[in-house]
Amino acid sequence: MSVGESLEIIRRGTDEILVEAELEKKLARAKPLRVKAGFDPTAPDLHLGHTVLINKLRQFQDLGHEILFLIGDFTGMIGDPTGKSQTRPPLTPEEVRGNAMTYQEQVFKILDADRTRVVFNSEWMNGLGAAGMVQLAARHTVARMLERDDFSKRYKSGQPIAIHEFLYPLIQGWDSVALQADVELGGTDQKFNLLVGRQLQEAEGQEPQVVLTMPILEGLDGIQKMSKSLGNYIGITDAPDEMFGKIMSISDDLMWRYFELLSFRGLDEIADLRDRVADGANPRDVKFDLARELVGRFHSTVEAARAQQNFVDRFQKGVVPQDIEIAVLRSGDSGIPIANALRDAGLVSSTSEAMRMIKQGAVRLDGERLEDRARVLDVGTDLICQVGKRRFARIRVE
Amino acid sequence: MSVGESLEIIRRGTDEILVEAELEKKLARAKPLRVKAGFDPTAPDLHLGHTVLINKLRQFQDLGHEILFLIGDFTGMIGDPTGKSQTRPPLTPEEVRGNAMTYQEQVFKILDADRTRVVFNSEWMNGLGAAGMVQLAARHTVARMLERDDFSKRYKSGQPIAIHEFLYPLIQGWDSVALQADVELGGTDQKFNLLVGRQLQEAEGQEPQVVLTMPILEGLDGIQKMSKSLGNYIGITDAPDEMFGKIMSISDDLMWRYFELLSFRGLDEIADLRDRVADGANPRDVKFDLARELVGRFHSTVEAARAQQNFVDRFQKGVVPQDIEIAVLRSGDSGIPIANALRDAGLVSSTSEAMRMIKQGAVRLDGERLEDRARVLDVGTDLICQVGKRRFARIRVE
Repeated sequence: MSVGESLEIIRRGTDEILVEAELEKKLARAKPLRVKAGFDPTAPDLHLGHTVLINKLRQFQDLGHEILFLIGDFTGMIGDPTGKSQTRPPLTPEEVRGNAMTYQEQVFKILDADRTRVVFNSEWMNGLGAAGMVQLAARHTVARMLERDDFSKRYKSGQPIAIHEFLYPLIQGWDSVALQADVELGGTDQKFNLLVGRQLQEAEGQEPQVVLTMPILEGLDGIQKMSKSLGNYIGITDAPDEMFGKIMSISDDLMWRYFELLSFRGLDEIADLRDRVADGANPRDVKFDLARELVGRFHSTVEAARAQQNFVDRFQKGVVPQDIEIAVLRSGDSGIPIANALRDAGLVSSTSEAMRMIKQGAVRLDGERLEDRARVLDVGTDLICQVGKRRFARIRVE
Repeated sequence: MSVGESLEIIRRGTDEILVEAELEKKLARAKPLRVKAGFDPTAPDLHLGHTVLINKLRQFQDLGHEILFLIGDFTGMIGDPTGKSQTRPPLTPEEVRGNAMTYQEQVFKILDADRTRVVFNSEWMNGLGAAGMVQLAARHTVARMLERDDFSKRYKSGQPIAIHEFLYPLIQGWDSVALQADVELGGTDQKFNLLVGRQLQEAEGQEPQVVLTMPILEGLDGIQKMSKSLGNYIGITDAPDEMFGKIMSISDDLMWRYFELLSFRGLDEIADLRDRVADGANPRDVKFDLARELVGRFHSTVEAARAQQNFVDRFQKGVVPQDIEIAVLRSGDSGIPIANALRDAGLVSSTSEAMRMIKQGAVRLDGERLEDRARVLDVGTDLICQVGKRRFARIRVE
């Protein structure tokens, strides 16, 4: 494959490539590049948002390059030493290994395990010692660090920045030196840190890595970034039916975004699908293609086909309207009892009507008859709810 | 000795004691306190400016407390990793030991070696590791560090601050934790760093150290701080005659300051000397007392007496006027030829007159006849220069 063709594949969906001319030079050498991406060992439940970057790694892999899948266990084992965050307790080496295993299991649904080098940065960071850390800290100035967008905002608004937060970009950069990375991938929010790697490599006499940023994927709502805590995510371990249903729920606009960033189809093929929809084809059928591809990737083609069949059976044969209304219900930690949810979603006029309908077997959640009148919908619930033959709503609890 | 009496001795000459009530409480326990002071292993040539603090340590020692003489070898072995300063190259462990020995030799002219614990902070800092350094960095915020006077000025004026400079106060503070210091002494310019020690000790559940700052001693000019690079210093290894002469050159005002900060005489005795001068005694005689005390401390009483005799012989019998004019000459690296210096100081009208006078044996430097007409006065030179019987000037080359 020519350098130009490689570049076109690499360019797809990226936000920025710094510096593209350097990447071209590196590709022209026709030697496998060391392509680095760093992952935090604390949150191993991957969703499709994470896979945008992993897919790009896969493309590099398919082009013959070596993937350095870096687990940031050095900082993971430190946790948040300010003690302010309960979500970042220090991890033991065992927990790090455990999380790393879960990570790999998930990631290897996309990446080719045989062409991926999993590395842990504690390997070189622990050896650096206290003195080495001081020397590393000497490589950057306070003023330049405060130029980083989030630091700058926090500093100006008087929010505390602990000094060790200034060390993390340097540690990430030092990882690139230790690995002699040719390319580093990250989200657009990582750009500053990725550039620190370039700077440190240059200071060490290495050829600086090319920085490639990937956009942040929007969640099911098409607006906010996909995130577990926002409940708008598709987990890569979601069951086939759930995954299929979630994909079918996205807007047509978002569907094209997902095609670009999540599908492995060629850009030509995607352009062709767009043309067909423009010519009057049903976008739902194209969405089926996307859903089948993604379910197939994380499960199997057989399960993907079955998920589609189930979807059709449950909703289409049950005459689920195409433009179903979405009811977003706010809940405290205790969730919302189903009767209240049906009333608040406008499917019934009162909780007593709701109770009556449930008793009659006239309420279905995701196509299945509801038996439990005491059912509580927890935060994060996202269901198609049917009352009688004609009343439908998609209920989300936030 | 009562707590009150101890406090009075400790209080003498200090700039600040934070917090004095805490010090009183510590003294009241009637147990030896651990009194820490840190020294940089890179500059072992001590001058009297350094001894202000060492004298205070000696007073603590005389009160029965333990002195922790800390050699900051951990940072000494790092040097200035920004590579900007040529005066702070990284030291090898051997150099650090060598410097530390020189230090101790000099310091033990004041401190009692038997009651001084010399400690090296590499002992606990190296063991901290890279992760420990990150955790230490998490103990302080960027904003609070930028409140330190010199950082604040540099940040505002756009001068770079390397990030590791934020780590040094934390390292100094961590030394106090490792040593469980009860008191830490430093110059007034060290106040911020000393307070970091208090903060870290409290966070570690220790009783915070009392911070005691000593004023910065003025040099021979009575204005700028005593400093080797300013040439206005009295080195504690200066030869007896040189040391004696330098002390005799200070102003009467500065003499009282030196009495307070450098003499071991009681405050009562010093008050008495002041009274005598106020009643008409010659301040020169009181200055003799100070000079003899200091030369005696760093050499011997015999040498001090001899230095006074030499001084009298050379200058008083040679009719050196009391109010001698000072000529400060600027020079490049190559120094100033003596003939030019004599002309520039106004002692002769031309370099040819200078040459003639030297040839006639009519030029004396510090009382000794000058033989070498090619003599060059280097930067740092500070001499009493006599031409003929009546022309005198003190020549300083800067």
